[in-house]
Amino acid sequence: MPIDKNAYFWQVMEGRLPPPGAAKTLAIRFTHIDAEAGTIETAFEAGPEFGNPAGNVQGGILAAMLDDTMGPALAAMLGEGEVAPTLNLNVSFERPAHFGTISGKGRVLKRGRDVCFLAGELYQDGQRVASATATAIVRRVDSR
Amino acid sequence: MPIDKNAYFWQVMEGRLPPPGAAKTLAIRFTHIDAEAGTIETAFEAGPEFGNPAGNVQGGILAAMLDDTMGPALAAMLGEGEVAPTLNLNVSFERPAHFGTISGKGRVLKRGRDVCFLAGELYQDGQRVASATATAIVRRVDSR
Repeated sequence: MPIDKNAYFWQVMEGRLPPPGAAKTLAIRFTHIDAEAGTIETAFEAGPEFGNPAGNVQGGILAAMLDDTMGPALAAMLGEGEVAPTLNLNVSFERPAHFGTISGKGRVLKRGRDVCFLAGELYQDGQRVASATATAIVRRVDSR
Repeated sequence: MPIDKNAYFWQVMEGRLPPPGAAKTLAIRFTHIDAEAGTIETAFEAGPEFGNPAGNVQGGILAAMLDDTMGPALAAMLGEGEVAPTLNLNVSFERPAHFGTISGKGRVLKRGRDVCFLAGELYQDGQRVASATATAIVRRVDSR
C-alpha cells in the first residue's frame, strides 16, 4: 500500500503539524516506523508524575503508552482524511514498570477496510512489562 | 468488612500521605466513597495536554482514569500492608470525550481473598464515554 505523506501522522512526523498533547505529555519518540509492514517502535519517558502508590508507573499510563504505540502503527498506513479511533483496548500488566525509559512495539495485525486489529508490547530493561491488543475503526472525515 | 483507616488509601484520603503522581497528573477528585459497598465516584480534569489527533481526550488517558477509578474502589477495602496491582484492564471507548470534566464510577464486582474483579465507567455531559473491567490481585507487603 503506498504511503500517503499528506496523512495526519506523516504531517506530524515531518513537522508540518504539531504532535497531539497526549503524545507530548507521554514524551513519545518514534524509533522505527515501517508503514508498509504496519510496525512501529516507540520510546517513552515516565517520571514520578505517572507514579502509582507502589512507586512504579501507573498501569493506566502504560495503557496510554500502548494506545500511543498501536494507534500510530495504524495511523502511518492511513490516507489523507482518514482517522482510526480505538474502540477497545485490552492490556495485561506483566511486570511493574519503574520510572525511566519504556520502549514499545506496535503492529497492525489486520488492516481491514473499516475494522482493524492491533497488538503491542512495552519493554523495560530487556523484559516485557505489558502487552495489549486493540480494535480500531477507520473513519473518513472531511479533510479540508 | 471493617474499614482499615491505616491502609494506604485512607492515609492519602486523610492527608497523612501524599497522593501518587498519576492521581495528581490526572487531577483526580473523589466525590463519593462507600468502602463497605466497594463503590466509588471520581472526577477528572482533562485538558489539551491529554489530546489525541482528533482534539479529544486520548483513549489511553481515559484508560488511566478508569484504572484510577476502579483501583481506589478496591483500595478503600484493603487492610494495612495490602496492595492490589491491576493484572488486566479492558476498556471500551463508546464516545469521544472532549476537554473538561470527566466523572467516573467504579465498583468491586468481587473481592476475593486474592483475585478481585472490578468494573467502571466514565461519563461526560450525562453520557457514558467509556467503560471497563479489570482484574486485580491482592498482595501482602511488609508495611513498615
